[in-house]
Amino acid sequence: MAHYKVILAYDGTHFLGFQRQGAARTVQSTVEDALRRLGWQERALLSAGRTDSGVHASGQVIAFDLVWNHSLEDLLAALNAHLPEDVAARAAEEVTAEFHPRFDALERRYRYRLCAGPLRAPLRERYAWRVWPEPDAAAMNAAAGLLRGTHDFAAFGAPHKAGGSTIRCVTAAAWQPEGDGWVFEIRGNAFLYHQVRRTVWALVQVGQGRLSREAVSAAVLTAQPLPPGLAPACGLELTEVRYPVEGEDERRR
Amino acid sequence: MAHYKVILAYDGTHFLGFQRQGAARTVQSTVEDALRRLGWQERALLSAGRTDSGVHASGQVIAFDLVWNHSLEDLLAALNAHLPEDVAARAAEEVTAEFHPRFDALERRYRYRLCAGPLRAPLRERYAWRVWPEPDAAAMNAAAGLLRGTHDFAAFGAPHKAGGSTIRCVTAAAWQPEGDGWVFEIRGNAFLYHQVRRTVWALVQVGQGRLSREAVSAAVLTAQPLPPGLAPACGLELTEVRYPVEGEDERRR
Repeated sequence: MAHYKVILAYDGTHFLGFQRQGAARTVQSTVEDALRRLGWQERALLSAGRTDSGVHASGQVIAFDLVWNHSLEDLLAALNAHLPEDVAARAAEEVTAEFHPRFDALERRYRYRLCAGPLRAPLRERYAWRVWPEPDAAAMNAAAGLLRGTHDFAAFGAPHKAGGSTIRCVTAAAWQPEGDGWVFEIRGNAFLYHQVRRTVWALVQVGQGRLSREAVSAAVLTAQPLPPGLAPACGLELTEVRYPVEGEDERRR
Repeated sequence: MAHYKVILAYDGTHFLGFQRQGAARTVQSTVEDALRRLGWQERALLSAGRTDSGVHASGQVIAFDLVWNHSLEDLLAALNAHLPEDVAARAAEEVTAEFHPRFDALERRYRYRLCAGPLRAPLRERYAWRVWPEPDAAAMNAAAGLLRGTHDFAAFGAPHKAGGSTIRCVTAAAWQPEGDGWVFEIRGNAFLYHQVRRTVWALVQVGQGRLSREAVSAAVLTAQPLPPGLAPACGLELTEVRYPVEGEDERRR
């Protein structure tokens, strides 16, 4: 029996989110079904975090115990052979029994794609939020700069456990042009429920002149509530979860 | 009654190609259904060309006659309201009654996306062909350069009508890096059936060292047959069809 860390990629369009929920088609239940075909017998796999219904991932991290007498390449091939085409295992390594993808994570990275236009764009809208009128990228970037640092992000999301802390540390948040749109990259130690999608929604409102930069500043600095609004799930992708480098271990447990 | 030219974008994944085929879900039948909701009564719309099952488009061109007493913006909005989410009208203009999207076209442009990797990549494979081992981009580009010019492309495809000419003029063909992959752009006056997918397949074989540059050269210059092979439809996108600029009309009819 060994403990494995596996990186998952999935197109979230047809999943009701990551977390197992009864008989619903979720990423967790789909991957657990594949693992059972390899003899896995635990009750639940561990993950770096839940993604909402429709959210994509290129760097979700899971961990599980498994008796596996072949190579890691064979493990990846066997898992992928049992997974449907919208989810795949992209990397595997054996880790120490204590490794926990959520508790050990030092940083999460998300990407959010935006495109602008008055008319539907079928080749873009599976992985991007189409907005109109075209937001001002400089205004969105100026407001994004306000997010960096350790703040009470209560205006942007809820803790995963009722009564939990809403303090989070955002280490990077910036928009870059990409093709006919923009891509937002945000990094932080952890994120509240809906935090990235609320953040993107607010920045787009600023870019469209519907919300002031001061409102975002007050939300970040003094947790002043923001108007309700949520960017759609389809634009969001969990790209990477980072852990301490082995040897220079800074685990908190 | 006026004659309209409309640019269509579609995600070809769930269409059995462009052309109407009985009760199958095709782009043509889907758009014709939407047009009928606006009072259109012709037997068939005109198009710049058929795309195969699974091929995408951002610049397909259609034309039809319609009695429409509102603005072009309203025509686009009405069409899009009746079209499913994987197809959209992106632009509309009124054209002369003689305009024919296929016969009047001077140039077609296609794009083919490639990504490389040994493992499935769910967020890429809807719009790209994943290949492995990684092809040599310089070798693919050198071979692509051989295609330019007016040649007998019989080794790369079949004429749409049996016995038709296989002479075509390719005006541009080159690979560019794009994210974690490459994008191939090819332009020509017209293309044979399967020509772009056969071409991409052959260039990838060259990039992987499975086919010699000389074999491509002989196929282009002397119509020497190539081994069978076809790049998958999912990587291909019809991006643009170009017409004479009004005023400097060079129509052939």
